[in-house]
Amino acid sequence: MIIQIAPGLSDKKKDVIINKAVSGHFKVREVRTQSATYLIAIGTEAADIRQFGALEGVMDVHHVADNYKLVSRKWKRQTSAVRVGNTLIGAGDCTLMAGPCSIENEQQVEAVVAHLVTHNIKIMRGGVFKPRSSPYTFRGLGLEGLKMFYDICRKNDISIITEVMESGQIDMMYDYVDIFQVGARNSQNFNLLDALGEVDKPVLLKRGISGTIDELLQSAEYIFSGGNEQLLLCERGIRTYENAYRNTFDINAIPLLREKTHLPVIADPSHGTGMRSLVPFVALAAAVAGADGIMYEVHPQPEKAFSDGQQTLNFKESTLLIGQLKKVLSVSR
Amino acid sequence: MIIQIAPGLSDKKKDVIINKAVSGHFKVREVRTQSATYLIAIGTEAADIRQFGALEGVMDVHHVADNYKLVSRKWKRQTSAVRVGNTLIGAGDCTLMAGPCSIENEQQVEAVVAHLVTHNIKIMRGGVFKPRSSPYTFRGLGLEGLKMFYDICRKNDISIITEVMESGQIDMMYDYVDIFQVGARNSQNFNLLDALGEVDKPVLLKRGISGTIDELLQSAEYIFSGGNEQLLLCERGIRTYENAYRNTFDINAIPLLREKTHLPVIADPSHGTGMRSLVPFVALAAAVAGADGIMYEVHPQPEKAFSDGQQTLNFKESTLLIGQLKKVLSVSR
Amino acid sequence: MIIQIAPGLSDKKKDVIINKAVSGHFKVREVRTQSATYLIAIGTEAADIRQFGALEGVMDVHHVADNYKLVSRKWKRQTSAVRVGNTLIGAGDCTLMAGPCSIENEQQVEAVVAHLVTHNIKIMRGGVFKPRSSPYTFRGLGLEGLKMFYDICRKNDISIITEVMESGQIDMMYDYVDIFQVGARNSQNFNLLDALGEVDKPVLLKRGISGTIDELLQSAEYIFSGGNEQLLLCERGIRTYENAYRNTFDINAIPLLREKTHLPVIADPSHGTGMRSLVPFVALAAAVAGADGIMYEVHPQPEKAFSDGQQTLNFKESTLLIGQLKKVLSVSR
Amino acid sequence: MIIQIAPGLSDKKKDVIINKAVSGHFKVREVRTQSATYLIAIGTEAADIRQFGALEGVMDVHHVADNYKLVSRKWKRQTSAVRVGNTLIGAGDCTLMAGPCSIENEQQVEAVVAHLVTHNIKIMRGGVFKPRSSPYTFRGLGLEGLKMFYDICRKNDISIITEVMESGQIDMMYDYVDIFQVGARNSQNFNLLDALGEVDKPVLLKRGISGTIDELLQSAEYIFSGGNEQLLLCERGIRTYENAYRNTFDINAIPLLREKTHLPVIADPSHGTGMRSLVPFVALAAAVAGADGIMYEVHPQPEKAFSDGQQTLNFKESTLLIGQLKKVLSVSR
Repeated sequence: MIIQIAPGLSDKKKDVIINKAVSGHFKVREVRTQSATYLIAIGTEAADIRQFGALEGVMDVHHVADNYKLVSRKWKRQTSAVRVGNTLIGAGDCTLMAGPCSIENEQQVEAVVAHLVTHNIKIMRGGVFKPRSSPYTFRGLGLEGLKMFYDICRKNDISIITEVMESGQIDMMYDYVDIFQVGARNSQNFNLLDALGEVDKPVLLKRGISGTIDELLQSAEYIFSGGNEQLLLCERGIRTYENAYRNTFDINAIPLLREKTHLPVIADPSHGTGMRSLVPFVALAAAVAGADGIMYEVHPQPEKAFSDGQQTLNFKESTLLIGQLKKVLSVSR
Repeated sequence: MIIQIAPGLSDKKKDVIINKAVSGHFKVREVRTQSATYLIAIGTEAADIRQFGALEGVMDVHHVADNYKLVSRKWKRQTSAVRVGNTLIGAGDCTLMAGPCSIENEQQVEAVVAHLVTHNIKIMRGGVFKPRSSPYTFRGLGLEGLKMFYDICRKNDISIITEVMESGQIDMMYDYVDIFQVGARNSQNFNLLDALGEVDKPVLLKRGISGTIDELLQSAEYIFSGGNEQLLLCERGIRTYENAYRNTFDINAIPLLREKTHLPVIADPSHGTGMRSLVPFVALAAAVAGADGIMYEVHPQPEKAFSDGQQTLNFKESTLLIGQLKKVLSVSR
Repeated sequence: MIIQIAPGLSDKKKDVIINKAVSGHFKVREVRTQSATYLIAIGTEAADIRQFGALEGVMDVHHVADNYKLVSRKWKRQTSAVRVGNTLIGAGDCTLMAGPCSIENEQQVEAVVAHLVTHNIKIMRGGVFKPRSSPYTFRGLGLEGLKMFYDICRKNDISIITEVMESGQIDMMYDYVDIFQVGARNSQNFNLLDALGEVDKPVLLKRGISGTIDELLQSAEYIFSGGNEQLLLCERGIRTYENAYRNTFDINAIPLLREKTHLPVIADPSHGTGMRSLVPFVALAAAVAGADGIMYEVHPQPEKAFSDGQQTLNFKESTLLIGQLKKVLSVSR
Repeated sequence: MIIQIAPGLSDKKKDVIINKAVSGHFKVREVRTQSATYLIAIGTEAADIRQFGALEGVMDVHHVADNYKLVSRKWKRQTSAVRVGNTLIGAGDCTLMAGPCSIENEQQVEAVVAHLVTHNIKIMRGGVFKPRSSPYTFRGLGLEGLKMFYDICRKNDISIITEVMESGQIDMMYDYVDIFQVGARNSQNFNLLDALGEVDKPVLLKRGISGTIDELLQSAEYIFSGGNEQLLLCERGIRTYENAYRNTFDINAIPLLREKTHLPVIADPSHGTGMRSLVPFVALAAAVAGADGIMYEVHPQPEKAFSDGQQTLNFKESTLLIGQLKKVLSVSR
């Protein structure tokens, strides 16, 4: 059960609500986010929620039996749009975000920024802290690279999404990041999720390498209940027995997530396929399946990229995809 | 290496070609389909195929290094359209096929046929021999059900696709079937595949429960090399760790199969999701990802269906989906 | 609910039992096996089974809520040993079966037979009808190979286990086979399972490529309810995301199957690993985990085997394994 | 290529070696662990390693083509035993470690310690920082719990293994921990792995939820190349399509890891099955398959445990298992 309570409600009045829940054999936890205050009441017995609705200071009460609570659409019917610069993600449009796997140098960033500006794309992705399976491969330009990335983007009114790998990096990255990305390998790094709950900037949470829908939503619940309601979920392909591609993009997840949660759902067809030739098809598929956004990899010369070149579009391919997306979106929304 | 030879070429001239291949350390197998004759030459050494192109009676030579040969797009660039009644599947359109999981009775068939006629759908699916995990559940109406199904469809100019479960059933089903469907559990039933190679009617081959793309294409090669070139492949979802849905529809497979093979690719979003609410989204996704056809389950009263009701659309949902498909197909093809 | 009824019970008295079940909202199906007669009553309501125990002609009544019934250990506490020649499989020992993947020629069979005789192994495996992913690879010596295999084994008092690929092959194989093996790809070939229910020889049923425990037991229920109680189940590795080996041997399945079913459980460490170096370790593991038998691949010259050489032991390795198995079995049973 | 160089080699002499490698188109990285100094040379060309063996200061040279280098058994044939208290893990014995999922209170710890002392088990597991899917469940007693755990263990000469969830926790935990455990969800938390490379205490690294063997070894390479050679690997079951159990214990991984790496391999049959009744069978299986250690969950009253009760043995079951393990180990090592 989720009980949203009035801002500034006195402790005394809050205790009345809590005591009523406790006497009904619920365990109650108070959650204060940057936007509101909630009481999460977890119990095995079905309560008559109308009893709570009548109490002073109760704004809203909902029964949610799932493992996750505050991120459930059972509680909030409308998609919770997230503002990034002047863009509102989850308000009905399909927001594009694009950029290279890794930030490499100024020339590369400037070229991609110019491509994005041409197509009116307002959010650029690019990794500076790179999780890599092997310790001997390129691990990103780090903070200096992020600052360079930031300087070029700000001049061009482009927002930045980039991956944060542990809670200790948040503070130093904060000034230069518009959306903190949690990568697939950190999807259940609960300390990182807790820490991002205290941040007042949007977070994009990727599904784990073999994460279930339920686990993704519970991980989102960590961030939300930690205080941060500005959340985006990202389907990026899952690990299956099939090795014809790097990952198997789970198209079912797009409509299912939109059914289960009020958080916007972003598709990553680059990691979801791992093959350049498949990216445009899967991007289009995700768009018509209802994705609130598409994030894909683009690079001036994919064949020379430091990482992920085989799944990265060049500018010509990206331009073509943008045109196709506009066409299908014009008839499907 | 695939060598297509002229129809009616004399054995003597054919031997010249074969001997040349054998002397190049190839193993040669002659394949006669209902349309053409091929020599499949399998070897480890790279041959200069131009040597063969000049020989008398050679119409075409191609190097194909994959495990599958005749079904590869490396050999045949254009999609091999399959004719069913007046419909040509794989010629650029997205062909719809619909119907119940199981044929139940006349009223049901007539109701579905009327729905299809209204929307100009020319191919109806419906099982009469049902593979079921438990021996104690409904296993289909059998041959008598098929005859009834046939009678109603013929009057309405509707073609029939239905599942064949073993080679012993082919003859008795032959007169009443337009497309023989091989189910996911029989995707590597090689005796059945061999037998269908000798049939002169189209076959739709489903991907195995956890079949790889490569296995699907090799299974298709069984039928093709057995003589039958009228082949459709079907992506119907794969088994993964995720149990939020019955199967995980593999959207990547649609464009990848179209890259690898010249056979038309059909999507089955009903089995691919197992959830009615997801079916329309995944159907649309498959359509924009390039599927040559969509086959889905529809029933007058899904909640009363003998099988698969939870993944079956009712007529209203089906009508809505058909309209949405038309819209996105109008801009994406 | 399973009701075992007395042999030769009159139809009238049987109807009394059936009517009582039907009036309790059960669907009743009579199952006659080669050993006994059962009524399988399937319903949603919990019945008081004592009501049935008192009826004339009722020998035994058990409540079984699983998808499978007659193969459940809830109904039959003792393992149902299967007799093959003078060997009783499932009576407490761990029975060894060994042999090549494919029967190739007399010399090979004689060499393996001699190896088995030396070590007092009484059952030899060897394929004559081979399911192969590609139509262009060796598919086995067929019936003539089976006859040769049979002749050599009979002279040496060795029983034969070999794979049957479709129901149409059963009759012609019957005289030469002691255990019919159903391969992983045919684990849900229900027509084949039905047909083997009518055979009066033991059947070894392999788990599907990605078959669940529940599906395996339901497939076994097909054969059992078809009339044949002489059944062995076989764990042979499952398909997972890991490609360091051909399959992932599911060691959990050995004790779990023994918990769920009264049928003997055989382990196949050769297919379960696909790597020769791992076979002995996994064979030992399966033995201490409770397997009723181990079936593994052995060949005079694995590196020259027609198929599966990479997972096949040579005689020296086989001898070593047999010695290790004896040691651990001596202390663990 | 791995080049081990003499301790205290002058920079000048080291440069001679490095320059030779660089001129052979290798990228060279120097790795200093707490035990030795290595040059890791990564290149595409096969080098004649004898050229390097003759250079001054080179103690050892090995060609290792795998993604991982220093953890490969190609380089070091003998298992690298890890000392914990007076126990040497990986020296031929099978070391037992046991304890509850979560540390709950003094009584619980004292009861388990007494059980371990009775059976001469010297290492106790117990979580104080618990990774949990849901933010609303018990997350462990934290540092205070660890101190209590430590006090009781030290009095009884028991060493402690417990999970560390992020690099920021290492320092505060350091004094109270004998083996730092990296959990499955953190198996590719590269910042944590880097940080543990700088610690001079043993680390037990669990395989990821769906981690490959190759990824596990590369993660181990992070810690090793970060400086810490005291490493244990742990197979704890993988995520598959099968949901009859929580995880599928990968028995193949035990012998394969022992083939691929010189690091000791520990089996966790509790997480590997998730079912109490299977734990003893899988523990025995892992022991005969070559595991260097077994770590399992035991609790005075599993049915009242804060977490993982369904996979935890009680003292009676644990005692029985220890006896069985001794018997099979006595004949298999």
